Amino acid sequence: MRLSRYFLPILRENPKEAEIVSHRLMLRAGMIRQEAAGIYAWLPLGFRVLQKITQIVREEMDRAGAIELLMPTLQLADLWRETGRYDAYGPEMLRIKDRHERELLYGPTNEDMITEIFRASVRSYRDLPKNLYHIQWKFRDEQRPRFGVMRGREFLMKDAYSFDIDEAAARRSYQRMFVAYLRIFARMGLKAIPMRAETGPIGGDQSHEFIILADTGESGVYINSDVLDLPIPPADVDYDSDLSSIIAQWTTLYAATDDVHDAARFAKETPPEKQLHKRGIEVGQVFYFGDKYSKPMKAVVTGPDGVERPVLGGSYGVGVSRLAGALIEAGHDEAGIIWPEAVAPFRIGIANLKVGDAATDAASEKLYGALQKAGIDVLYDDMDERPGAKFARLDLIGLPYQIIIGPKGLAEGQVEVKTRSTGARENISLDAVVNRFAG
Amino acid sequence: MRLSRYFLPILRENPKEAEIVSHRLMLRAGMIRQEAAGIYAWLPLGFRVLQKITQIVREEMDRAGAIELLMPTLQLADLWRETGRYDAYGPEMLRIKDRHERELLYGPTNEDMITEIFRASVRSYRDLPKNLYHIQWKFRDEQRPRFGVMRGREFLMKDAYSFDIDEAAARRSYQRMFVAYLRIFARMGLKAIPMRAETGPIGGDQSHEFIILADTGESGVYINSDVLDLPIPPADVDYDSDLSSIIAQWTTLYAATDDVHDAARFAKETPPEKQLHKRGIEVGQVFYFGDKYSKPMKAVVTGPDGVERPVLGGSYGVGVSRLAGALIEAGHDEAGIIWPEAVAPFRIGIANLKVGDAATDAASEKLYGALQKAGIDVLYDDMDERPGAKFARLDLIGLPYQIIIGPKGLAEGQVEVKTRSTGARENISLDAVVNRFAG
Repeated sequence: MRLSRYFLPILRENPKEAEIVSHRLMLRAGMIRQEAAGIYAWLPLGFRVLQKITQIVREEMDRAGAIELLMPTLQLADLWRETGRYDAYGPEMLRIKDRHERELLYGPTNEDMITEIFRASVRSYRDLPKNLYHIQWKFRDEQRPRFGVMRGREFLMKDAYSFDIDEAAARRSYQRMFVAYLRIFARMGLKAIPMRAETGPIGGDQSHEFIILADTGESGVYINSDVLDLPIPPADVDYDSDLSSIIAQWTTLYAATDDVHDAARFAKETPPEKQLHKRGIEVGQVFYFGDKYSKPMKAVVTGPDGVERPVLGGSYGVGVSRLAGALIEAGHDEAGIIWPEAVAPFRIGIANLKVGDAATDAASEKLYGALQKAGIDVLYDDMDERPGAKFARLDLIGLPYQIIIGPKGLAEGQVEVKTRSTGARENISLDAVVNRFAG
Repeated sequence: MRLSRYFLPILRENPKEAEIVSHRLMLRAGMIRQEAAGIYAWLPLGFRVLQKITQIVREEMDRAGAIELLMPTLQLADLWRETGRYDAYGPEMLRIKDRHERELLYGPTNEDMITEIFRASVRSYRDLPKNLYHIQWKFRDEQRPRFGVMRGREFLMKDAYSFDIDEAAARRSYQRMFVAYLRIFARMGLKAIPMRAETGPIGGDQSHEFIILADTGESGVYINSDVLDLPIPPADVDYDSDLSSIIAQWTTLYAATDDVHDAARFAKETPPEKQLHKRGIEVGQVFYFGDKYSKPMKAVVTGPDGVERPVLGGSYGVGVSRLAGALIEAGHDEAGIIWPEAVAPFRIGIANLKVGDAATDAASEKLYGALQKAGIDVLYDDMDERPGAKFARLDLIGLPYQIIIGPKGLAEGQVEVKTRSTGARENISLDAVVNRFAG
């Protein structure tokens, strides 16, 4: 992408309304624009990040055997009355009346609707297990939306729902999602730690939050530092096999949020030198809730014994739009954002330091073409501006690599490659630079 | 995908509420499920089609130089008051109040919001042209939603917005979208004919609808049959070049809908043997509206002369979810859907005719694995059901190719390949079948 043709509205000033660094940097880097309290437009740079996060989530859900569909944003109030949640939900639910005065709502989550979809066609244990998910915009009418996309009102969530015939099978479904979540966050370059959690408004009796460490995190967390070194299940993990040992490995060491922290247990189970007290951000949560929805909604299946019983369920959320902010909270410096490669909007930025100079233009164009041809996402800064402005902008938007092309280096056949995360710089011959990044 | 693990709730009965064939077939094939009047869940098979349509639209928009972003579904009423559209829009606009009694609406279109985003940062003709688009759910509260996804209330639309400094440049932006639209629909296997249109509620002074022919279409159309043989611009069309000749070619021959049909002109311009009167379905529309939004919203840019003027705009819509229905209206037979390859949910369906038979299972599994490895989307029917049910289901869901594997053929080392669109059948040796489809 040529910057001259792109739409990248960088802000020069620090926006006053932004209380936390991810919100500030997303606004400054032209990633998002607020359209109403807690409601954002994702500008082109932000949208690219959102797409990359979405794609990783999708690939790992598919790998774990979940099936993607897409439920609508608006739902009938009557559906939520079946589970008693319409009255219970409170003012965070955005309630709507259409032109015929029918009561709708903007879905804050989808347990009720997916159960309705399930019960309409599934009758037998032979059709189980099933895990259905979607990646769709949700709305929660927060009393005080803040922190940008970290606590927005309209937000993008991946939510998956499992259906099983008995508790043993339901536990296996839960474990598959647990393992998929370890992989999802690791692929984004995040250390996400599963922590036993309160079940909250979704209900049920087992739940884990996945929390990444960040100094600006919303909750305090207490962990055994060894949890940071646990291995991530590989891409070829067999989701049909017994995953209990992976789960055991990840749930034995102490890890808890403020809400459920047990200081005595922490002290007892954790050697003093391994006791870490940090701050964290929740990026996903998994729940087992059994027949909480299937029972009132009469979503029953026939077992091998011919007897009908309510199907047992769990739900599994990943905060997709929230992750864009969380990734910045976990990866930034004074100069701006530092994207992990897997979610960077572009992998490389080319800075042409002397637009208008024939040799510099030609070398920049040639490199831009060659990198694109190699299938690399590249942003080519072809604007006629001073080098300082270009360096500041590239640092701000946080692309993993910068290729700096100026007349001086070119005279020696060289360009400079800067790695954003380390600040390391190396001179590479113009001919070698594509091979450095390709393949 | 193994059918035994998929979620494909086929209906045995013809749903009574479906008045048109696409609605009936989408419900029967388990593509969609109605969750409220005009509001649908896209079940896994339907979601795959929606994704394929979306991806074609995205690729062609990007190729034409448009930049993708994502605006939220909910908008502030005050934004629409700036253009006077909040009061003008009528009961099709879904109006919402949040917990603080602030007035929101579910966006039916995005001219106002994109103009707000544009004016916040663009100041100079040097930043033009710009074309920004998104693919997002919209809501129009139709008085009487019907025809399934063809006239739903919550629907997925691609809408692009161009911004230019003068009319000549704005015309070029319009022409780029016109050409992109020719490519978009052709890639889906559709013959879409641009027809001069009334501008309707979007306003402005130039507009074309893109209409595909289907016996069940909503409007009558009158065309010179030669328009069906016009060439589609190639993938390497230069969008920076003068596209006028392509536009001229596509707008010279008579083509008009009922609304604007001029019988005298039709008779005069069209040889009798080339006069076609058919029915058609609108799948896209392009508008030029000049300063209709920029003037009231004060979206001004400075020209080369240093003088500020309102930017000139156009908008360009493709009905993404509607296309799923339109494709079926244009491609089906008594047995079910006939998908063009480019948008088929899977390219191939494998029917294992004797599940449980060791040789048939082994051959089917091996072929399924090999096709997947070749990167082909394949649905493997591994259900223990009678052949007739399998044939009917595969015909119904309309995958382009069926590979039928049974003990009889296998004894001779052969499988049968059926092409859904023609009904043609051929026997192919098991070893050759992957090469038939790969690469």
